[in-house]
Amino acid sequence: MAGGRAETRKWSFTPHQRHGAGPAPLPAVFWSGAGNQPPRRRRTWSATMLLHRAVIPRLRQACRLQSVPSRLCIRACSTNDSLQPQCPSLAFSGDNSSTRGWRVMGTLLGLGAVLAYHDHQCRAAEKSPHIYTREEVRSHSSRETRIWVTLGCEVFDVTEFVDLHPGGPSKLMLAAGGPLEPFWALYAVHDQSHVREILAQYKVGELSPEDKAPSTVKTSDPYADDPVRHPALKVNSQRPFNAEPPPELLTENYITPNPIFFTRNHLPVPNLDPETYRLHVVGPPGCQSLCLSLDDLYQFPKHEITITLQCAGNRRSEMTRIKEVKGLEWNTGAISTARWAGARLCDVLAKAGHQLCGTEAHVCFEGLDSDPTGTAYGASIPLARAMDPEAEVLLAYEMNGQPLPRDHGFPVRVVVPGVVGARHVKWLGKVSVEPEESYSHWQRRDYKGFSPSVDWDTVDFDSAPSIQELPVQSAITEPKDGETVQSGEVTIKGYAWSGGGRAVVRVDVSLDGGLTWQVAELDGEEQCPRKAWAWRLWQLQAPVPAGKKELNIVCKAVDDSYNVQPDTVAPIWNLRGVLSNAWHRVHIHVTP
Amino acid sequence: MAGGRAETRKWSFTPHQRHGAGPAPLPAVFWSGAGNQPPRRRRTWSATMLLHRAVIPRLRQACRLQSVPSRLCIRACSTNDSLQPQCPSLAFSGDNSSTRGWRVMGTLLGLGAVLAYHDHQCRAAEKSPHIYTREEVRSHSSRETRIWVTLGCEVFDVTEFVDLHPGGPSKLMLAAGGPLEPFWALYAVHDQSHVREILAQYKVGELSPEDKAPSTVKTSDPYADDPVRHPALKVNSQRPFNAEPPPELLTENYITPNPIFFTRNHLPVPNLDPETYRLHVVGPPGCQSLCLSLDDLYQFPKHEITITLQCAGNRRSEMTRIKEVKGLEWNTGAISTARWAGARLCDVLAKAGHQLCGTEAHVCFEGLDSDPTGTAYGASIPLARAMDPEAEVLLAYEMNGQPLPRDHGFPVRVVVPGVVGARHVKWLGKVSVEPEESYSHWQRRDYKGFSPSVDWDTVDFDSAPSIQELPVQSAITEPKDGETVQSGEVTIKGYAWSGGGRAVVRVDVSLDGGLTWQVAELDGEEQCPRKAWAWRLWQLQAPVPAGKKELNIVCKAVDDSYNVQPDTVAPIWNLRGVLSNAWHRVHIHVTP
Repeated sequence: MAGGRAETRKWSFTPHQRHGAGPAPLPAVFWSGAGNQPPRRRRTWSATMLLHRAVIPRLRQACRLQSVPSRLCIRACSTNDSLQPQCPSLAFSGDNSSTRGWRVMGTLLGLGAVLAYHDHQCRAAEKSPHIYTREEVRSHSSRETRIWVTLGCEVFDVTEFVDLHPGGPSKLMLAAGGPLEPFWALYAVHDQSHVREILAQYKVGELSPEDKAPSTVKTSDPYADDPVRHPALKVNSQRPFNAEPPPELLTENYITPNPIFFTRNHLPVPNLDPETYRLHVVGPPGCQSLCLSLDDLYQFPKHEITITLQCAGNRRSEMTRIKEVKGLEWNTGAISTARWAGARLCDVLAKAGHQLCGTEAHVCFEGLDSDPTGTAYGASIPLARAMDPEAEVLLAYEMNGQPLPRDHGFPVRVVVPGVVGARHVKWLGKVSVEPEESYSHWQRRDYKGFSPSVDWDTVDFDSAPSIQELPVQSAITEPKDGETVQSGEVTIKGYAWSGGGRAVVRVDVSLDGGLTWQVAELDGEEQCPRKAWAWRLWQLQAPVPAGKKELNIVCKAVDDSYNVQPDTVAPIWNLRGVLSNAWHRVHIHVTP
Repeated sequence: MAGGRAETRKWSFTPHQRHGAGPAPLPAVFWSGAGNQPPRRRRTWSATMLLHRAVIPRLRQACRLQSVPSRLCIRACSTNDSLQPQCPSLAFSGDNSSTRGWRVMGTLLGLGAVLAYHDHQCRAAEKSPHIYTREEVRSHSSRETRIWVTLGCEVFDVTEFVDLHPGGPSKLMLAAGGPLEPFWALYAVHDQSHVREILAQYKVGELSPEDKAPSTVKTSDPYADDPVRHPALKVNSQRPFNAEPPPELLTENYITPNPIFFTRNHLPVPNLDPETYRLHVVGPPGCQSLCLSLDDLYQFPKHEITITLQCAGNRRSEMTRIKEVKGLEWNTGAISTARWAGARLCDVLAKAGHQLCGTEAHVCFEGLDSDPTGTAYGASIPLARAMDPEAEVLLAYEMNGQPLPRDHGFPVRVVVPGVVGARHVKWLGKVSVEPEESYSHWQRRDYKGFSPSVDWDTVDFDSAPSIQELPVQSAITEPKDGETVQSGEVTIKGYAWSGGGRAVVRVDVSLDGGLTWQVAELDGEEQCPRKAWAWRLWQLQAPVPAGKKELNIVCKAVDDSYNVQPDTVAPIWNLRGVLSNAWHRVHIHVTP
């Protein structure tokens, strides 16, 4: 335990020791015993370890519920959240009460109860906190000067926590030297007792009375202008909006209707004016950049293709059943198919003067969706794919014959056939060719696959490639898990798809959990070799074996590189819950 | 059982009923009871069924040991095999005795014994057989005229068997109207009691005495001129030669030395004169074809790449453990890596006037290895791959800095990075661009993957694509299964590779059968994106968990499309035993 790395991680939860100020008070919740009184001075090395053990699982629990743009289980604070009590209890807030909850409680119990509560909190907090001005806090905005943030009236030195931030250091650094509220408003997952407990560890003081006024940073609901959605969508997160069509609708049509096409937003939906919209395409050195209006884009040859988009997190809920992961609970519906039309990226890049070069390069995309600091969603794909006419990468402005819906990137999004949805940047604002991949959080610190043995303490994001092409996938959409069917014959339906333009060549279906198999019928026409960008829907009508009261239905697909889906979920489990493509299983009952 | 298909298949084993000649005699082996005397006239419908049931498993057993060029467990008859007794017993030959065996037996037992044996055989055969001339037999060479063949002095109508021939109808049709001996000399697997028992079912008579002279077809050992091989190779079949390096040598070097590079021949090795060698490249309509000498080929820019070749049957032995398959018993060594140099196929095709066309087309290759009828080994790849400079398809004349060894295609072979070995045609004689895939047996009736539910009665070769890119693969080469290691630390080594230029990004290793995993260290440098043509060797040094007396070591690889290997073999089992890429497992013992 004397190794540098372990020690750093441990120390990160005892910041006061680094300050030479002695052990920090532990939140009462970490101590059993009377009075919730932290046994100060009793704390020893082993107590530090205990703290470490106590905090880590909570941190993980918090992680699971996400905390940065890529983690989406979010209820954003309303505008009024900034009006929460100026000295909220950090150590004792035992629930997720919103400001409304606080106010209701105050009304019910009256001032006396509030004062009693405040007194209780004070006993657990520093006896005489250091007092800092906002100006002083602002000066602590780097690792060199240490990294301070405020929440309400309290000041925290989170320097040691930055590298442990589940959303990655860069996201927390955005708040360095200032208030957390604007970010917590965007990513409401933070507003939980576990998160507050972790934060409490890092308290170094409070704001001076004159600085206790609410932050002037605008915290109006950034999602207020999001579009209205179809009620059939199963919502996994409202803010940002993430939703999937129910399985029974998903494979109703080969082309998914726009209103129920799965939606995966990382940030609020921008409201862009098509008249003033401009796409900036950075030219190579020595060339002028392009600034393209929608009309300019329409001048490029229009190219139209049917492709299936899949989120890296599709079927994550099956991984969660194995062990907690960080990410939205997608079922089988984070996948949909549309006919996209637009200009080919290779044509636009060529117009800007780009050509394929010998060295590896990347085309970086930036969205016009951004967080309160102006950080846009971003991603990149290899230049070789972008410049290959056969790869058919589009700057799409139509989806199923309509202008793109706002949720799907109006007016322009990238469409990268055969590649994970995360690279299909919506509300596209900027395209540039760079020697390195996008430095976006979502390219470098997210959307990567790891061994089941890797956890948030050991993960090294640089060790894994960013997900581009996805592995072979299939799922059963009918019958649904737990459903009861009549004996006689059962009809099983589903979808199958593979990344990289690899065609699905076969879907095997089992009624007995994988012991014996039948070949399903693939609907629709065979696809263009090497350009099988869209899924195949499939079905199997099979007699229910006599006397069976239940069936364990399983499907697995094979693509034209003869890659197959793995049998089980646990061996492909990963801490972000991506790439969940094990055999899909539903268990159904049979009535005699 | 009254369905047309089932009936046809059943009838195929009782050809005499179709001839209206009453039930055929069953080989004695099918009947229990005294005297090995077939109980004629007792045979009924259910006896037909019994026959069907008895023959099918034997047919399958025969299949497993292979019978056409692609099935390689072969001991070819020597030149003297054509001198075997003119009336060999078909029903009673109980072993695989070669001619030498016959002669030794004859010498030992004397003429009396031979005569007794002949008498024994006659009792089991037709009492008074029809007599045919070779001329009459020759007239039965199509389905319309019915298909007859001879073996020794006996004549068989195999019309009903043609579609059941494990090597495909086309191969059996090559012998239509003539003797089987030349083919059995090439594919010695036929020379087994089970095969002779099946054939006996179709006997319709015997050759006239004047036609009983040995066939004039040349049956000299076609493998006599094969090269001498390295003694370290583990031979799976001598004729044609098929052998793999032992695992402990396989991953000794990143580049496999030529003498132990796995060898997969379908036919005898041709002995080609580099001075007179010519490669015919058929030009497009209206253009002249090229006829290239080796010197001509050297004039094209020399291109050099390191690629891994893998046979579709690599690790087939693991499938055999699940259920019999047809194919050689490859272990983990049907894979090797070399540095190849030659002309790019795209340059040669361009020189011939070919260009990429809008419609799907294929580049067909023919080898200069051929069977006695002159049928050459052949295969094809899509034109799009052939014409893509990035796909780096070579007409290779060097292997690891040396001229190609004869076993590996001297003087020129095709090398198709990322694609199954079967398309890397050796001893290349002809290249042409065709609208369809090669009509070669190995392209259309072999090297395809099927569902585990498909057997030789139900297989439809047209329903599956020919294998091109292979799925992700890995195997453990050290320690070996069953080995005993010292407690303390164990070093595990192996290889990992994926098709289509997809790089291996991770290898997970488990010591507990797949419950927990550790990430192995990948040796060597990272590979060129999209052109990861060669394997990664990997290793893991791991402490042996205290008290463990045995370890179930497992490995699984992940490629950059995040495809993974399936957990188990049974669900990917297929009748040809190809594409065996489940987790590789070795079980070892630990000494305290």
